[in-house]
Amino acid sequence: MGGDGGAATMLAGAALALARSPDLRFLIVGDEAAIRAELARHKALAAASDILHAPDTITGDDKPSQAIRRAKTTSMGLAIQAVKEREVGAAVSAGNTGALMAMAKLALRTLPGIDRPALAAIMPTLGETDVVMLDLGANTECDANNLVQFALMGAAYARTALDIDRPRTALLNIGSEELKGTDELKEAVAKLRAHPSLPLEFVGNIEADRINRGTVDVVVSDGFSGNIALKAVEGTARFVTDLLRRSFSSSVRSKLGFLISRPAMHLLRVHLDPNNHNGAVFLGLNGIVVKSHGSADEKGVANAIAVAAKLVRDDLNHLIAEDMADYRAASTPPAASIGSAA
Amino acid sequence: MGGDGGAATMLAGAALALARSPDLRFLIVGDEAAIRAELARHKALAAASDILHAPDTITGDDKPSQAIRRAKTTSMGLAIQAVKEREVGAAVSAGNTGALMAMAKLALRTLPGIDRPALAAIMPTLGETDVVMLDLGANTECDANNLVQFALMGAAYARTALDIDRPRTALLNIGSEELKGTDELKEAVAKLRAHPSLPLEFVGNIEADRINRGTVDVVVSDGFSGNIALKAVEGTARFVTDLLRRSFSSSVRSKLGFLISRPAMHLLRVHLDPNNHNGAVFLGLNGIVVKSHGSADEKGVANAIAVAAKLVRDDLNHLIAEDMADYRAASTPPAASIGSAA
Repeated sequence: MGGDGGAATMLAGAALALARSPDLRFLIVGDEAAIRAELARHKALAAASDILHAPDTITGDDKPSQAIRRAKTTSMGLAIQAVKEREVGAAVSAGNTGALMAMAKLALRTLPGIDRPALAAIMPTLGETDVVMLDLGANTECDANNLVQFALMGAAYARTALDIDRPRTALLNIGSEELKGTDELKEAVAKLRAHPSLPLEFVGNIEADRINRGTVDVVVSDGFSGNIALKAVEGTARFVTDLLRRSFSSSVRSKLGFLISRPAMHLLRVHLDPNNHNGAVFLGLNGIVVKSHGSADEKGVANAIAVAAKLVRDDLNHLIAEDMADYRAASTPPAASIGSAA
Repeated sequence: MGGDGGAATMLAGAALALARSPDLRFLIVGDEAAIRAELARHKALAAASDILHAPDTITGDDKPSQAIRRAKTTSMGLAIQAVKEREVGAAVSAGNTGALMAMAKLALRTLPGIDRPALAAIMPTLGETDVVMLDLGANTECDANNLVQFALMGAAYARTALDIDRPRTALLNIGSEELKGTDELKEAVAKLRAHPSLPLEFVGNIEADRINRGTVDVVVSDGFSGNIALKAVEGTARFVTDLLRRSFSSSVRSKLGFLISRPAMHLLRVHLDPNNHNGAVFLGLNGIVVKSHGSADEKGVANAIAVAAKLVRDDLNHLIAEDMADYRAASTPPAASIGSAA
């Protein structure tokens, strides 16, 4: 029921995702009448779907604390419940991010070894592969252990979603030197450097102007800095394309140039269109929950569904749990060595 | 002596600034032989300049703690000393930012009422006027009082540099609601809302994707978030123009489009060229110190010099000191009212 386009966009997106991956099955949670009305226009989707009626919805104005009290009656709450009860492999929502996070955290709980979940997304780069960024806003403040856990979760996500063996992983900082930034960052650098065998290549700090150069696969930050960086990137991409459009339309000669260079502009648009990178994932929970951007169109929703399906197929959460167990085993000094220095 | 181009670029920039503002006078601090060699190519500048020989220079690798011990022998230290002794109105350097900040803070001290200086810069927007951003990296962590002081300093800077009467001033945050973000931000919002008469229009929180929409004149943040936002903006602008260049050269038809649309691209480049917005200012010190970007060309250096000259002419520091005095007077409850409630 969420997102700017409501059920119409969500179901058109599901139909598109199904056309691309015919083995998908859907549990559609929300107002049954509205869902049935839309499903009449998507025969194949109707045949691949069950409907779960929810009498209520979470709106964009609901506070997380209010939302969690309505878990049993709202489409968002019931969709997460279906993940918890393993009726479905993943939930995809275009609704209120804060409410989705709070409900998912409460119902699903974190994976063993994970103190806090993080919101992760994939962004385009100038390199061969995209880059995973996390946390994008789930945790305003983080300690060094949170950041280390985010690094491991982000790397597992990159291995799964981007098919990268040993993701180059960096901490977002205000300088590349390892003594820069907050105490939490310095401690996280030390912990990641000290560990004997991480399932990632830790490359130290990265500054925000290099996020999309294609030199790293995972960028780790607290949710405040990550959200600032993500939005600054989104805003600037829009700023530059707006400027460009304005400058192209500033003279007849330029208008002609714009027409002729349409294929180039199209390429640019495809690369920058957030719909092609839609689907932020809450990593670290006992279940997969994907957030589709509220303004995503049906193509964007289909991408978010594809992200969710890939994470289910590749069993991302099993990978994270394994990596965390390995990390903790290697970080705990063997009992026999205690006091044996002499 | 600083910056990628050293004395050659700095003096070419000074010559350009002098050509634009013939009333400028220069004290050129650094290696005398190198300076004399460059001045031979700039007759007018030579006539408007004195030279102060400095046997030593601060390099990009010097730590701030090392730099401050060499204040009396280095070009950077002697230039700041000249500001302190009122021999010059302002210092402009393209050298090591951390060293410049540490040396300037130690030699010049902060203005009355200012606990910490902040690094401020001016960025382009889609609106009629540019936007002032601060702090861009001088203070990794800030409390609410620091943020309030930054707001007042940033607004004074916008009134001076951008000629805006009552600058619309916002705090950089991860949501526009006033209960978002860190405790420091919430407290700063409350303080700015509570004050009866600020020399600015406080408009609440702003998200990083709206910095350059032209809806605010001053964006206030701690130095960590501000640096992340600034660099994400710079990196994305470069990312998009790189993508664009790449897509334009991907077909003959597009190459033709590129040629025809050159004026549009030129307009875009002028708007985005960091040299046109060069010159970050350390606000809050007893003296004006401007940082020119290390990669700035002569046009960029000339802009940094023009920024410094404008702040001297408009007496920015007097304005900040006045605003701070007014703020503190209005924030302190009158003595007579204490204990008089009954």
